[in-house]
Amino acid sequence: MVEQKATNITWHEGEVTAEERQANLGQKGCTVWMTGLSGSGKSTVAVAFEQVLLQRGHHAYRLDGDNIRHGLNKNLGFSAEDRAENIRRIGEVTKLFADAGIISVTSFISPYAEDRDKVRALHAEAGIPFFEVYVHCPLEVAEERDPKGLYKKARAGEIKGFTGIDDPFDEPANAELVLSTHELSIEESVQKLLDILEANGIIKG
Amino acid sequence: MVEQKATNITWHEGEVTAEERQANLGQKGCTVWMTGLSGSGKSTVAVAFEQVLLQRGHHAYRLDGDNIRHGLNKNLGFSAEDRAENIRRIGEVTKLFADAGIISVTSFISPYAEDRDKVRALHAEAGIPFFEVYVHCPLEVAEERDPKGLYKKARAGEIKGFTGIDDPFDEPANAELVLSTHELSIEESVQKLLDILEANGIIKG
Repeated sequence: MVEQKATNITWHEGEVTAEERQANLGQKGCTVWMTGLSGSGKSTVAVAFEQVLLQRGHHAYRLDGDNIRHGLNKNLGFSAEDRAENIRRIGEVTKLFADAGIISVTSFISPYAEDRDKVRALHAEAGIPFFEVYVHCPLEVAEERDPKGLYKKARAGEIKGFTGIDDPFDEPANAELVLSTHELSIEESVQKLLDILEANGIIKG
Repeated sequence: MVEQKATNITWHEGEVTAEERQANLGQKGCTVWMTGLSGSGKSTVAVAFEQVLLQRGHHAYRLDGDNIRHGLNKNLGFSAEDRAENIRRIGEVTKLFADAGIISVTSFISPYAEDRDKVRALHAEAGIPFFEVYVHCPLEVAEERDPKGLYKKARAGEIKGFTGIDDPFDEPANAELVLSTHELSIEESVQKLLDILEANGIIKG
């Protein structure tokens, strides 16, 4: 580059540090990983949680099927290999958002403990806070809610390998938070999420 | 979900709107896509640009080889197919960051016009601002800088398919901005980037 001229533009060598980013945003980045059956309430809670965070001046973003399956992961199907790659990519992207200082909220069934644990390990290696949130309700409740009519199709054999019907859901053994959506209101669930972020120094009360 | 209780937590049906997000962040999200030869100065300019944006209270994040090649795209090699998939994934991720209201700055050689144009189209479809920035200097200058010693290896035949040596770089035909780094200081380049964001209503002056 040519010689530096007088200007009001200054910077230091090297990259923006995590501390600078944190000071700038007034929060730490993290991943809030919601896992649970279809119909358990992951998206409902995630949508409300994101809104409340933004209302309070925090920076949050939600990754879900709508913005991932039709974009980044549109070239993946439902084979065992593709399902693992689906979660791997989501794990890498949410880690980037968290690294950017954002409270990144993911809402995917993510049924296999092995895949979720890899995402957890990825965050641990990078020193980025990771909260596994088990959005839980009994299968009967999820099936009765059946917001997208998918359980009906799975029971009729029109969908194969559907989580909870003919494909397993590995219950999280070490979730940082369990939200039992058949017992909690949306407000109560959101409050519990805010509380855990506050208790871990991600946001201030 | 069970009945709503009195609380200070409120939200509306549906997702956070782009307008709410913009009001919250005081900026619009966008992608600033830097393309150019190895050694053209993409990363140097991007690092300074990100810092200056953060200093001024904006929200920016940089995607580059360091955080993409070893993470999201670590399962890609250098075949023609994998190179295209590399840029496709980066395009999808930067679009997510821009959708989140962030000024997303990418710094990749991205030598093929076809791949870059697909990323541009992806943003256009979603109504997300996209700025293609051609970080330019003559090949001789880039080769003399050779910050990573890669040109030397390519000339020695130790690296095959190296952009500018034995693989083409398609010069952008419609870049929103050209930064000739053999003629501009880093400050001048950053100022031109700030100017174009301001002129397009992404940030306020």
